[in-house]
Amino acid sequence: MSHARYLKKRVIATVVSLLFIIGALMLHTKVSLAADSDEELIKRAAKIFGQLPASMPSPDNPITPDKVKLGRVLFWEPRISIDRTVSCAKCHPVGLYTVDGLRKALGNHYKEIPRNSPTLFNAASQISEHWIGNRTSVEDQAKQALVGPPAYGMPNYESVEKILRGMSGYVALFKEAFPGEKEPITAENFAKAVGAFERTLVTPASFDDFLRGNARALTDQQKRGLTTFMDTGCMSCHFSPYLGGQMYQKFGVFEPYETLTKSQAVDEGRIAVTKNPTDRFVFKVPVLRNVAETPPYFHDGSVDKLADAVMIMAKVQLARDLTREQIGDIAAFLTSLTGKIPDAVLAVPVLPSEN
Amino acid sequence: MSHARYLKKRVIATVVSLLFIIGALMLHTKVSLAADSDEELIKRAAKIFGQLPASMPSPDNPITPDKVKLGRVLFWEPRISIDRTVSCAKCHPVGLYTVDGLRKALGNHYKEIPRNSPTLFNAASQISEHWIGNRTSVEDQAKQALVGPPAYGMPNYESVEKILRGMSGYVALFKEAFPGEKEPITAENFAKAVGAFERTLVTPASFDDFLRGNARALTDQQKRGLTTFMDTGCMSCHFSPYLGGQMYQKFGVFEPYETLTKSQAVDEGRIAVTKNPTDRFVFKVPVLRNVAETPPYFHDGSVDKLADAVMIMAKVQLARDLTREQIGDIAAFLTSLTGKIPDAVLAVPVLPSEN
Repeated sequence: MSHARYLKKRVIATVVSLLFIIGALMLHTKVSLAADSDEELIKRAAKIFGQLPASMPSPDNPITPDKVKLGRVLFWEPRISIDRTVSCAKCHPVGLYTVDGLRKALGNHYKEIPRNSPTLFNAASQISEHWIGNRTSVEDQAKQALVGPPAYGMPNYESVEKILRGMSGYVALFKEAFPGEKEPITAENFAKAVGAFERTLVTPASFDDFLRGNARALTDQQKRGLTTFMDTGCMSCHFSPYLGGQMYQKFGVFEPYETLTKSQAVDEGRIAVTKNPTDRFVFKVPVLRNVAETPPYFHDGSVDKLADAVMIMAKVQLARDLTREQIGDIAAFLTSLTGKIPDAVLAVPVLPSEN
Repeated sequence: MSHARYLKKRVIATVVSLLFIIGALMLHTKVSLAADSDEELIKRAAKIFGQLPASMPSPDNPITPDKVKLGRVLFWEPRISIDRTVSCAKCHPVGLYTVDGLRKALGNHYKEIPRNSPTLFNAASQISEHWIGNRTSVEDQAKQALVGPPAYGMPNYESVEKILRGMSGYVALFKEAFPGEKEPITAENFAKAVGAFERTLVTPASFDDFLRGNARALTDQQKRGLTTFMDTGCMSCHFSPYLGGQMYQKFGVFEPYETLTKSQAVDEGRIAVTKNPTDRFVFKVPVLRNVAETPPYFHDGSVDKLADAVMIMAKVQLARDLTREQIGDIAAFLTSLTGKIPDAVLAVPVLPSEN
């Protein structure tokens, strides 16, 4: 081998080695950048989701301790339903994150309620209530449930008021909650008390710690899931501190939802409320907080597993075929939205006596 | 007026005055005697009713904190029933003294359960469970409810075990409650855990303060009611610290019960269990603790008001027509049996996750 040839070989070897080292350094830098980008991820997520408020107030129904106290009692009260079996707690069992775990809820006389029971946690934050937005507020929902044929099923509001007025315990509680009113026991005030209680039901989770700057509040997989959640476009509907509840959207933008959900019947959604053809298959975007604890999924409870729900949503809403890994990451991220159930919800009040 | 005549008048006046004073003194003495007899009333009642124990242990199922903890969770668990709607808490709502307030309880698919739901409080003290004594213990009741067609309605115990084994939260809880067992998740252990929880459900009341010597724990009306309760013979069946649950008795000794209860159907009671003709119309004597808070009354929930139940019992069991006042007094006494609901019952546990 000539000296020139030897030198050339050495130069090439050195260059290759240098390139390898540079490559390795770049790879390392990339990893470091990923770690460093926690801050950026937090900044980006905070911009989209914002901070979770401590309660969900309404100018129409100020939250007062006495209203909340009464609302908590009424939440558990079945004796004001037509067959004495329906209370808020029936379709919203507190030990199960206020969902009943059924595809569709069951009201009086085992009547099927049209859609799946959503969790009450953080629900008062939404633009409207019910999957198709046919209730304007939690108060409106509570009041109308009393006379809803498949819900409490009472013939009219007077019959509810009469039962409540017959128990001295309620006379005292309503008087305290609505001081100065001549007749505090009304269906309207029932709704205000239950609504005030619901407006306190916020469930902070580890995701909120993360948004406040604690990078270690999420696992690496959850951080990847959060990134994928934002990159894929999930957050174009599931934004706000509640990750949803702020808009309506067609379910099945790119293909009919029922192909994947295997729904037994096709629900046309909000068109039933507005009669507007553009609202066919439109539903309110649900709040994703506590979603890992509130199966089954969708308006008809047609899907049991969180991972399946994630896969379906990406496909029918965003025309995206997520990989198994991406689905797992997003599902892991969603578990960071599982919050602490408020103690006041888990403590059952003793109900007023009938004797 | 002659002196003799005057003297005679004075003597008569003096005698009359003396008689009046003696009368007044006797009246006063009588009142004092009534007050003094509190002690005797306490002594007499304590002999009949005894002291309320702190729990209701069983050699077959020792109460341990870990079993009670698991039992409390299982108490609220509906996902092990055939339609995912039935839990112990369904027929035994804790805010209503663990009764559902229905004439007859409703199980899976709204199926009617044969008889009225009794309170679980102090129930483990009884010679048997269910109105006709067809369950040997609270454990036996809990276990059989799982496969009872109108109750949880599961096809067999294995199907319940399979659901529980599918939730990691239950795997951990059963392991803790039954340490050292190779397969802790069994229907038998479900029953033991729920039973252990139930064995803690004792509800001390103001009557217990009275029995311990505090004469002021009962009002005068309640004391009169207690006396009438004992004098009339109610305590010949409703004895023990639980005021019942210790024996069987024919319902309608002196006349058919249905004449007064206006029961829609005539339930022949325990004969269904024993096939013994002497058990026709025989039922277990119910525990009277918390009776004022657990309407409607009797095995078929046919009577709504406590006073009516008292009147009927005296008539058909003891051939006694109580006065309105006596009925009111006994009803007042019975309210002294309304106890404090244990905090552990009112606190709902968060149930294990399905995801």
